[in-house]
Amino acid sequence: MENYIYGRSISKIILMKGQNNNAKFAKIIDLAKQRGIVFQFLPKEKFIPFGEISHQGVIAYTPPVKLVDFDEFINTKAEEKKYKKLIILDGIEDPHNFGSIIRTAVCAGFDAVIFPSRRNATVNATVEKSSAGAVNHIDLIMVNSLTSIIDKLKDNDFWIIATDINAKDNYYDIDYCNMNFAIVLGAEKDGISTAILKKSDFKIKIPMLNNFNSLNVANAASIVIYEALKQTIQKTGNVV
Amino acid sequence: MENYIYGRSISKIILMKGQNNNAKFAKIIDLAKQRGIVFQFLPKEKFIPFGEISHQGVIAYTPPVKLVDFDEFINTKAEEKKYKKLIILDGIEDPHNFGSIIRTAVCAGFDAVIFPSRRNATVNATVEKSSAGAVNHIDLIMVNSLTSIIDKLKDNDFWIIATDINAKDNYYDIDYCNMNFAIVLGAEKDGISTAILKKSDFKIKIPMLNNFNSLNVANAASIVIYEALKQTIQKTGNVV
Repeated sequence: MENYIYGRSISKIILMKGQNNNAKFAKIIDLAKQRGIVFQFLPKEKFIPFGEISHQGVIAYTPPVKLVDFDEFINTKAEEKKYKKLIILDGIEDPHNFGSIIRTAVCAGFDAVIFPSRRNATVNATVEKSSAGAVNHIDLIMVNSLTSIIDKLKDNDFWIIATDINAKDNYYDIDYCNMNFAIVLGAEKDGISTAILKKSDFKIKIPMLNNFNSLNVANAASIVIYEALKQTIQKTGNVV
Repeated sequence: MENYIYGRSISKIILMKGQNNNAKFAKIIDLAKQRGIVFQFLPKEKFIPFGEISHQGVIAYTPPVKLVDFDEFINTKAEEKKYKKLIILDGIEDPHNFGSIIRTAVCAGFDAVIFPSRRNATVNATVEKSSAGAVNHIDLIMVNSLTSIIDKLKDNDFWIIATDINAKDNYYDIDYCNMNFAIVLGAEKDGISTAILKKSDFKIKIPMLNNFNSLNVANAASIVIYEALKQTIQKTGNVV
């Protein structure tokens, strides 16, 4: 499922003029008619802005990914009884990493991914593709200030877990069960900002051998996210 | 460390003519002279083949990544007493995933990554970059037939662990300690081939929630690789 986006509604399809004999085009048009989706034939020139995308003469427009308001998230979720699991991204610049982390968070049943409006990739087409469509299966929360959001989370009974190469505890030394928590992942180059590290309740590291102290951030995220899920499954017996 | 390759020797540097006043160029030339590295000014046209790489007028040539022969690996390693940990890739097409898996394998102290000569990405510049230079810190073994290599591994006291979404056991249900093992990861779309699944001693899956059954293969690799490392550290007390 690497190359598909699924679970999205389509608002419009454009097709390149002059390919009327193309069998794939005929099938797309058939499906569009069946489902009442607007489609349009446009000349080659209109596809120039999409230059680098390998579009094969067909582009589907999807409604923008819906972002969730932080306060709304906290208020709605407060009513549910289960413990919440969040990811906080502190300056992830690579859209592939951003998308890939969202995808892992969805696979592991996390509730939301929080990211800052500055110094972080935005939710664009690359993020959506790298997430394999996972952007539509989790609450994505864009915030202006991560530090003030972390304060609010702590007021709402969340524990903040920061990944930091200088931490003493390994990621598997802490107990992720029976609490609301947010795992913070830092920027590819610089890690988590000092202000956020100071506010964290736990600091954890991933052990490294070979003096090669450099995991890709999306892989690091997967390792910690799945440790948390594994502990939950093992303690609750809820094997999925 | 996302954007650097380190630990590589450089065989030659080429610089674009007509940028003699460029301060970065002067520094590069200085360093090249100090270290006795050949450098050459070439006209713009010579850089056309590198079209899509953002080279800023400087390209360093590195010796090709050295691949290791399988039989040589097995014979040399047999003398060491510690248990060996391998990764086998069965058709990973995306060079970013390939590089990223090599990087995680190095961080976790694995001994080698084995991949087939067909239906798999080769070790190119993208793989090297995605690995953050890790390609030079682990044995990379390219083989013609994965199935016959798996037979040889089994003859040499290795256990074969296949990741498979239809497996009954979760990845953390098996004991990775006190044995030589190879973790097999399958192609992004199709998973591991049936012939290899049949030869495997263990089949493991990564649990998925949300009916979103689709982890990126490099993230899946990280989750299993680090479970194996964690078990080793926890049982041997060898906290790194």
